[in-house]
Amino acid sequence: MITSYEVFVPAVMGSGASLRTGLKVRELGCKKVLVVYDNGLKAVGIADTIVENIQNAGIKTVCFDGVLPDPPDTMIEEAAEMARKEAIDGIIAIGGGSAIDSAKGINVLINNPPPIMKYFGVQKNLKPGVPMVFIPTTSGTGSEVTNMCVVSCTSRGNKDSVVSPVCVGTLAIIDPDLTVGLPPKMTAATGVDALAHAVESLTGGQSNPLSDALAREAIRLIAKWLPVAYRDGSNIEAREQMILSSMFAGMAFTNGLVHLGHSIGHTLGAHFHIPHGIACAVTLPEVIEYAAKTEYKKVRMICECLGVDVAEDAAPEEIGAIACKAIRSLIKSVEIPNIKELGIPLEAAIKVAPMVTADTGFALVPYRITAAKVAEMIKAAYDA
Amino acid sequence: MITSYEVFVPAVMGSGASLRTGLKVRELGCKKVLVVYDNGLKAVGIADTIVENIQNAGIKTVCFDGVLPDPPDTMIEEAAEMARKEAIDGIIAIGGGSAIDSAKGINVLINNPPPIMKYFGVQKNLKPGVPMVFIPTTSGTGSEVTNMCVVSCTSRGNKDSVVSPVCVGTLAIIDPDLTVGLPPKMTAATGVDALAHAVESLTGGQSNPLSDALAREAIRLIAKWLPVAYRDGSNIEAREQMILSSMFAGMAFTNGLVHLGHSIGHTLGAHFHIPHGIACAVTLPEVIEYAAKTEYKKVRMICECLGVDVAEDAAPEEIGAIACKAIRSLIKSVEIPNIKELGIPLEAAIKVAPMVTADTGFALVPYRITAAKVAEMIKAAYDA
Repeated sequence: MITSYEVFVPAVMGSGASLRTGLKVRELGCKKVLVVYDNGLKAVGIADTIVENIQNAGIKTVCFDGVLPDPPDTMIEEAAEMARKEAIDGIIAIGGGSAIDSAKGINVLINNPPPIMKYFGVQKNLKPGVPMVFIPTTSGTGSEVTNMCVVSCTSRGNKDSVVSPVCVGTLAIIDPDLTVGLPPKMTAATGVDALAHAVESLTGGQSNPLSDALAREAIRLIAKWLPVAYRDGSNIEAREQMILSSMFAGMAFTNGLVHLGHSIGHTLGAHFHIPHGIACAVTLPEVIEYAAKTEYKKVRMICECLGVDVAEDAAPEEIGAIACKAIRSLIKSVEIPNIKELGIPLEAAIKVAPMVTADTGFALVPYRITAAKVAEMIKAAYDA
Repeated sequence: MITSYEVFVPAVMGSGASLRTGLKVRELGCKKVLVVYDNGLKAVGIADTIVENIQNAGIKTVCFDGVLPDPPDTMIEEAAEMARKEAIDGIIAIGGGSAIDSAKGINVLINNPPPIMKYFGVQKNLKPGVPMVFIPTTSGTGSEVTNMCVVSCTSRGNKDSVVSPVCVGTLAIIDPDLTVGLPPKMTAATGVDALAHAVESLTGGQSNPLSDALAREAIRLIAKWLPVAYRDGSNIEAREQMILSSMFAGMAFTNGLVHLGHSIGHTLGAHFHIPHGIACAVTLPEVIEYAAKTEYKKVRMICECLGVDVAEDAAPEEIGAIACKAIRSLIKSVEIPNIKELGIPLEAAIKVAPMVTADTGFALVPYRITAAKVAEMIKAAYDA
């Protein structure tokens, strides 16, 4: 099979790297930038430190500090209006996936008229925006190195995404120091999101050898370091390995894409307001078990990366069962709740199965699957 | 430590990928390209097949089929003169490092006046050339994804290199089919070159987390697949994993760089006319053993990737000794001759040690080392 690897974002990595933001933004030739973040980051002082660092480099800043989780289209359109009025020539996003995806959405609208929903899907001919620098403060989204922005569509009540070169960052600044204050629950929820990116990218129909290599490395690192970062948030080595594995997983899935785990996650997340990472993780073991029917070679790799032995002559079903158990064990080690523990009644959870097949990512599922089978997976995962 | 990853070449990968060359060159907007290769590739029919494929896409071709091993500056200048006269708007290289580096050297001289030796070293302000597509036919050089071209300087009798964005390819086409005919000796010599790129990049002072991840993956793949490709050249899975590992190692060292193994390799190679991969491999075990003095964490990773156990509490010297043994074992499994078997007298080999310190790569050695220590390494490696 012939595959290709194209999307790539240069990265500056290491403890303290975010203190080079001003310098890097100046190197990009920006004079006045929009800085995008949420109130929480302002409260802990991370946003102000970086904004000052940019100003100290002689660059004017305009702040949009109203980023909402699962950024709504209306909020992005409002921020884009502000960006156009202020005539900014660069965008800096500080935060998790919501802040970075907001920045991407704003960039789409700099030179393309709103509403953003006009541009959902793969867009090859959008007018370019301005240089963007992404500074993640969680280890999970991978959005800092992808070419897509996920937007909550308020009129339709679902999530959709713009996939375009306009969504590709100019530079990612990967500073583990910014994640040290992340509470254990957030560390776990974002960490399993990175895990989902890696294992789904590896088993999806769009993967390629380079995305596979990055996905494998991400799985190895997450298996080793997520439990450490969860137990001891101040362990800087664990924080560094997690923010890197999140980036590797992001590089993997921006080319390899994700599939059923994320389709189920998007649907459960939208219906029951569960954080994205948890919503994607609850059925991930069953999704990968099912994937082993055809992608057993890749699922065997997942087992190897998780440090679990698989017999040389194991059948696809055995490989799937071993992977299912190993992934659940990792997820449970960081106390991700199952669907029951999330307080969702079994019947209500099963009811969303037909809606999963309407998720845009569902087309990427690399094997035939029905809503009835999705319901079975939700049932199997319910109190596992 | 803050590090960065910047150089990246998009890749199309897979069996048969080279038959998309014409299509890809047309997508780049080229109308008339220079195709660079050597006589050997013409003889086996690989060059003609690809040239025809380009012509069938409606693109004119001018062929330079006179690539020499360790490409001399004079040859590059002659080919560049031809490229300028023919007003080509793209360069396609088919072959090993010599063909690809020749293409890069020609590209440097498209809009910058000769001689090429004027541009040795890191060059940030060269005038850009034309789009370049690189099609490797060996699994070792990694040149298809690096930003440097190595040139033999005829007037000075040594090798030097140009490091510049002008040397970065627009696209790499990674087709394992093209390596199936590579004889076992060439498979081994080029494969250990890729191994040297990976282990030196990992232990060098310029490495970063992304180059490290790619280097580790390359080491794992080479350990598993080089012996298979050596024994059975028609094993397409082994060929595919080897050409990919060579690319991963190339991506690693274009950012992480190489150090002492290559400095010794360049010096031995120039003095005794040994193929590049073999020259770099003969002292590689001792180089990594020495590197363990300071880089023991990285050398431990090498051991892990080679599948060799290292005790949790092993001292740096032990880790170095284990890595030395494991690397030599891999190298010997593909029958790479030692210095004695190459027919070089011990005294003559030791005599070049002081010249190693004059190699441009020597400055990248991440720890203090003297010519006397280099002589010791050569002695230890001599009949090992």
